[in-house]
Amino acid sequence: MIRSVPRSLAPNAALGLFARTRARTDALAAPLRPEDQMLQSMEDASPVKWHLAHTTWFYEEFILKPRMPGYVSPDDRFAFLFNSYYTQAGPRHARDRRGLVSRPDCTEVADYRAHVDDAMDALLSSGRDDADDIAGLVELGCHHEMQHQELLVTDLLHGLSFNPLLPAYRDPEPLPVTTEVPVSFARHEGGTKRIGHDGKGFAYDCEQPRHKVFVAPFEMANRPVTNRDWIAFMEDGGYTGARHWFMEGHAVASRDGWQHPLYWWAQDGEWWTFTLRGAQPVALDAPVVHVSYYEADAYARWAGARLPTEAEHEIAFRDHAIDGNFLDDGKLRPMPGSAVWGDVWEWTSSPFVPYPGFRPPEGPLGEYNGKFMVNQMVLRGGSCATARDQMRPTYRTFFYPHQRWQMMGLRLARDAT
Amino acid sequence: MIRSVPRSLAPNAALGLFARTRARTDALAAPLRPEDQMLQSMEDASPVKWHLAHTTWFYEEFILKPRMPGYVSPDDRFAFLFNSYYTQAGPRHARDRRGLVSRPDCTEVADYRAHVDDAMDALLSSGRDDADDIAGLVELGCHHEMQHQELLVTDLLHGLSFNPLLPAYRDPEPLPVTTEVPVSFARHEGGTKRIGHDGKGFAYDCEQPRHKVFVAPFEMANRPVTNRDWIAFMEDGGYTGARHWFMEGHAVASRDGWQHPLYWWAQDGEWWTFTLRGAQPVALDAPVVHVSYYEADAYARWAGARLPTEAEHEIAFRDHAIDGNFLDDGKLRPMPGSAVWGDVWEWTSSPFVPYPGFRPPEGPLGEYNGKFMVNQMVLRGGSCATARDQMRPTYRTFFYPHQRWQMMGLRLARDAT
Amino acid sequence: MIRSVPRSLAPNAALGLFARTRARTDALAAPLRPEDQMLQSMEDASPVKWHLAHTTWFYEEFILKPRMPGYVSPDDRFAFLFNSYYTQAGPRHARDRRGLVSRPDCTEVADYRAHVDDAMDALLSSGRDDADDIAGLVELGCHHEMQHQELLVTDLLHGLSFNPLLPAYRDPEPLPVTTEVPVSFARHEGGTKRIGHDGKGFAYDCEQPRHKVFVAPFEMANRPVTNRDWIAFMEDGGYTGARHWFMEGHAVASRDGWQHPLYWWAQDGEWWTFTLRGAQPVALDAPVVHVSYYEADAYARWAGARLPTEAEHEIAFRDHAIDGNFLDDGKLRPMPGSAVWGDVWEWTSSPFVPYPGFRPPEGPLGEYNGKFMVNQMVLRGGSCATARDQMRPTYRTFFYPHQRWQMMGLRLARDAT
Amino acid sequence: MIRSVPRSLAPNAALGLFARTRARTDALAAPLRPEDQMLQSMEDASPVKWHLAHTTWFYEEFILKPRMPGYVSPDDRFAFLFNSYYTQAGPRHARDRRGLVSRPDCTEVADYRAHVDDAMDALLSSGRDDADDIAGLVELGCHHEMQHQELLVTDLLHGLSFNPLLPAYRDPEPLPVTTEVPVSFARHEGGTKRIGHDGKGFAYDCEQPRHKVFVAPFEMANRPVTNRDWIAFMEDGGYTGARHWFMEGHAVASRDGWQHPLYWWAQDGEWWTFTLRGAQPVALDAPVVHVSYYEADAYARWAGARLPTEAEHEIAFRDHAIDGNFLDDGKLRPMPGSAVWGDVWEWTSSPFVPYPGFRPPEGPLGEYNGKFMVNQMVLRGGSCATARDQMRPTYRTFFYPHQRWQMMGLRLARDAT
Repeated sequence: MIRSVPRSLAPNAALGLFARTRARTDALAAPLRPEDQMLQSMEDASPVKWHLAHTTWFYEEFILKPRMPGYVSPDDRFAFLFNSYYTQAGPRHARDRRGLVSRPDCTEVADYRAHVDDAMDALLSSGRDDADDIAGLVELGCHHEMQHQELLVTDLLHGLSFNPLLPAYRDPEPLPVTTEVPVSFARHEGGTKRIGHDGKGFAYDCEQPRHKVFVAPFEMANRPVTNRDWIAFMEDGGYTGARHWFMEGHAVASRDGWQHPLYWWAQDGEWWTFTLRGAQPVALDAPVVHVSYYEADAYARWAGARLPTEAEHEIAFRDHAIDGNFLDDGKLRPMPGSAVWGDVWEWTSSPFVPYPGFRPPEGPLGEYNGKFMVNQMVLRGGSCATARDQMRPTYRTFFYPHQRWQMMGLRLARDAT
Repeated sequence: MIRSVPRSLAPNAALGLFARTRARTDALAAPLRPEDQMLQSMEDASPVKWHLAHTTWFYEEFILKPRMPGYVSPDDRFAFLFNSYYTQAGPRHARDRRGLVSRPDCTEVADYRAHVDDAMDALLSSGRDDADDIAGLVELGCHHEMQHQELLVTDLLHGLSFNPLLPAYRDPEPLPVTTEVPVSFARHEGGTKRIGHDGKGFAYDCEQPRHKVFVAPFEMANRPVTNRDWIAFMEDGGYTGARHWFMEGHAVASRDGWQHPLYWWAQDGEWWTFTLRGAQPVALDAPVVHVSYYEADAYARWAGARLPTEAEHEIAFRDHAIDGNFLDDGKLRPMPGSAVWGDVWEWTSSPFVPYPGFRPPEGPLGEYNGKFMVNQMVLRGGSCATARDQMRPTYRTFFYPHQRWQMMGLRLARDAT
Repeated sequence: MIRSVPRSLAPNAALGLFARTRARTDALAAPLRPEDQMLQSMEDASPVKWHLAHTTWFYEEFILKPRMPGYVSPDDRFAFLFNSYYTQAGPRHARDRRGLVSRPDCTEVADYRAHVDDAMDALLSSGRDDADDIAGLVELGCHHEMQHQELLVTDLLHGLSFNPLLPAYRDPEPLPVTTEVPVSFARHEGGTKRIGHDGKGFAYDCEQPRHKVFVAPFEMANRPVTNRDWIAFMEDGGYTGARHWFMEGHAVASRDGWQHPLYWWAQDGEWWTFTLRGAQPVALDAPVVHVSYYEADAYARWAGARLPTEAEHEIAFRDHAIDGNFLDDGKLRPMPGSAVWGDVWEWTSSPFVPYPGFRPPEGPLGEYNGKFMVNQMVLRGGSCATARDQMRPTYRTFFYPHQRWQMMGLRLARDAT
Repeated sequence: MIRSVPRSLAPNAALGLFARTRARTDALAAPLRPEDQMLQSMEDASPVKWHLAHTTWFYEEFILKPRMPGYVSPDDRFAFLFNSYYTQAGPRHARDRRGLVSRPDCTEVADYRAHVDDAMDALLSSGRDDADDIAGLVELGCHHEMQHQELLVTDLLHGLSFNPLLPAYRDPEPLPVTTEVPVSFARHEGGTKRIGHDGKGFAYDCEQPRHKVFVAPFEMANRPVTNRDWIAFMEDGGYTGARHWFMEGHAVASRDGWQHPLYWWAQDGEWWTFTLRGAQPVALDAPVVHVSYYEADAYARWAGARLPTEAEHEIAFRDHAIDGNFLDDGKLRPMPGSAVWGDVWEWTSSPFVPYPGFRPPEGPLGEYNGKFMVNQMVLRGGSCATARDQMRPTYRTFFYPHQRWQMMGLRLARDAT
């Protein structure tokens, strides 16, 4: 049974997590000018300003309005503008028109954030009978905001990429040097295993319930596929022939003219890519990133392997630690093609469907994940843009097979002989 | 390990299966005029004339050309016109333009069929060392043709539905009377089970290999959801609110104005539907048909249940017999809302993905199923338009979640308490 | 003042015109099989079967139903199926779905034609007080049918062009030899002139009223632009640079990848084209055909000239005779690049707008031309597919600037120095 | 003969015009925040920031670079970003992606404007042999900038209209009261008349050459159609039936759900509209504005009249003065439904085609108007958003028949009896 709101946070820790999360979002937006915060380059992406407001609305809608007597929103119309998709929380603005909203402007959104921060401070500092419940909601709100932190930077990168001047979000300093690591495979025996979250610490509803699956013996690669690997695929005609592709994937690739990962271009015989630090030569031994599921699957077939299922990924990485990331320390982490996970989101071959026994919580928060469980694929791991608190082996993120603008890569698996 | 061509047919039985299959296709097309055979009402559907030619090309391309010395095609250009999607068999005509090909006309296509039938007769009647191989290919070709028999009538129904005169394919005689059957659920214990085809008798590559899955205890309804059930859903606002829907499903339903199953309309306070026998009142106790996965899933949630997984479906129906169908005897079978399966294809909650250890055969026939394993959902069972030889508990057919023109319905399942 | 129905025909001549016109339509359709008659390759084009029925409906709707007591249509629903765009004549089927109507089939449409022919015979053979009115309506109906005769063959050509087998409508015999004719320009003095139809003999409403225009001195070429001329344009980069093009025209040409006239392709260093007689080498000295207004205008600028206005065209050709054409004698007429007009429709630089004082007739026939007077350009002349009775210097046909599937070419004009 | 660059300005007046024009643009943008300046709500509209930069680039490209030795652009890449459509001036950014360019930001664009202003000051203050030429180019550049001033406010209004908060560009003070003026018609005799610009003072190339036209006697209404008039049309089913509409116009109106002018909505039994001063009740006796050509033409037919030709409009208003406007004094001008023109752009029934003898200037400035002369309709007059220097009876502005976001209205005309 899934709790109506997942929670694991002690009430007295809620304020700290809240403050830390809010500060990190503000730090991410700090280098941006108001013009940058308006960019919406496709329906899938949202303006930075919208992310700043929407994450704020989440606390207001689900905590302050129902729980804090006398709370007054600075503008009742914000609920319409900044609700993303919670139908039970009322009507909302069209998603593809978020970039057409210039008011409230960035200053007014900053005021909105401060207003909600103050109210949350007051609420969390007061002794209350429902402190446990509220802590659970705060924890969910903070994890929600962390997800939007990652979207904020990936949406921004996409938005900036349409500017022929290729402006850098951060100073364009050189990326860390990476070293070639030979690929090798480790065997896992499989069997009847349990996957999913055990309820200790925070997890989203869709990571639960923990349940049994039968997994055949398999092997997992020691590192993600690198840019060097990917270029070999490209040079072998990987994008040209249909042989390794899903029919639908090849149709999309042909229609959209895909010849390489998103943001790449060739210049003077070298591959370059557009990054948050501006134009950069492609680092050969860093994990390939910005490839769709269609491409990832075609690559794996070409390589004589396959993508792992999400169960295999979870089993293989259950005991691995992960450390350091871009969002926490404000620096780009190396992507060393290392054995650990967390450098790049890794496509799995598993469609995003409910775990057996899954039941979403009652009320609008039940819409958080449950209504997306069709036509999307699970990715596991985490990336240089993922908050450390979001990294755990049971985390299931999900995107459509054609999407490429997230920090998406892959790792090979194969059947054990 | 999957054989390069699945087969189970004794060589001396091949000719009989071939003759029977070809004759059934001809019988299905017999009531049609040349104009009817030209209809292509959407990219998903093909003209009857194309089905007649494509199923013929299949034997020519994969049996006669490689195996019969001296075989000459009546027109080498037919390979371009009538290849569907086998990239390894060469280039092919655009799928959405099949309705723009008036020549070869129906008479010429009939000649083409006769030409290939004669050559196949000669080939199958000669004693050969590779008779076993050929029998396997004939069996695949016949099953392929049976799939197109079902497509032929469903595509035709879709094509005729755009004609305001609502012409009937067969004489519009009244449908059999059906009786209301109360729904009840049977418990299944689950556990570590084997599903998939065991290799005895014909099966497609994607039904294999037989493999272990862990299944929790579940319950399965005694009959498919009926039109009466569905009308209750409609009357309870099933299509209006977003609450029970996948977000994507509700967006599609809104965009396309879905308010009821495909082909339905209201007339004088009663629901009518367009069928192969022309306009008919909706039979309340027949299984609902022509609903998408999105609708089926929303219905199941509304009903406090869920769709079964394909493993659950296969386990529940492994031992059930099925008899009678429309295509064999030329009559519309009753759809009695009975406990057996085979009246209507039943949406499962399982995306169409490879079974563990699946490896498609080498060569173009490896494209048969493997390259479709993304974004589609499995249906189990069979319908009034399915050939009896195609009905088996392991059969996996698959369609996109928005598609409705096949004979698609659903049966409820739920977690066992 | 425009008469409510234009007419010029003596009652006793109506039956002859009617019989001649109907027979010519039937002769045009005679070589076709039912499958060919179903083709609808774009919304602008209609199936041959539809043309056969729609031209028949026209007499039924506007003559038989209102004028012949006791007339009974073979099927009341045909009015819905075969009304093209007359809103005052009631609702109608969607234009882009005409190709999805297989019933009534060709035989039933032939029966419909015969039924209406018989009724018309009876009506026209009876002495009546309103014989004059009816003769006017018959004349309009016949001219309407002649327009559809031209559409029938051009729509058919478009439909057949999507068949990779390139089937010929008529036997693919070689086209007549043509000879190069040097271009020269004849001066016309202009001044205040009268253009438009004088009301003697048949004309459409939009050719009237005859009215004064002021025309500056101009020069008109002795022949249309030929394929040889056009190839010089192509070889000079005519399709590549934007310099000679309307911005909108160049955008369309780029979007649709235009590099040559419609139906052309290069083969072994020679230009070929698809015609009603199948694939043919491009005849260098025949008029170029199947070019859009955008292309025609760009060509004229490239050639240092311009397209004529419709007033200039009418003034220049008022006294020229025209003889012979494809539809009358069933043969393809030579396109000699001759001084006369009538080989190819000639784009003018004049948008299709009402003449000063134009007022469409009351009732649904007022919709015939009046509601199309926006965004289309006038062509003058006539083509190998135009009935001789349709050829007159005041005739204004009109199409959108991007359309190419009619027999469209051009003739150069320039300001007189 | 059209001069290569039209000019009428004395060199010593150029600096004053330049300073005045630049200051007016800055004043128009002054109330806006950076976020507002990013809005691009459709391909037809551009962000304010782009207008500020593009008008600046025009002087740089056509004056400073070719004429001022040693001029250095602050960023060579601006030529790519801020060229609108001059193919001879080099490649340029995609028009529909102007809203996706956040850098240069507003501050940097202001710096760009100051940089070019300084250079222009220096150039215009220096004595030069080509001062006459330069004065002509400055005059063209300033008129170009005035056109963009009008686009700036209309594009902004369109952009703001997508914000559910309906933010006002200027303070939402009440509009001036207007009074109902009965409509009456004045007779004009017509005859052979001259229209077009006589070359004294500034005019665009497309207003020339002055030439003779024959005009039949006509009558022109004393005032534009008002909102009160338009509501009568609406209440009479003007938008519902197809009778008064071009077929194409009615198709667009149906597809886009037009039921009233752009920006209107009904609220508590009253019509409201979104304006530069925010939401306002519709002023019944002000000219109707934001209607397309399709609507204007349908209205005129419904009213038993027609739109005037551009020749009629020019003849009728040749001697009328115009005074006062919004852009000059920063106030909304009354729209009194008065006899004068200049309150609202008035659709004419004339397609935008070249005048007889028109020849665009050589070089990229020849692209200014010439390449738009297809599929657009001429409007005459001017609006509350038009600079006074742009108002003259020969001015031809042009838009597509479906466009509504400009300050477009209409005035009735009719044939004189």
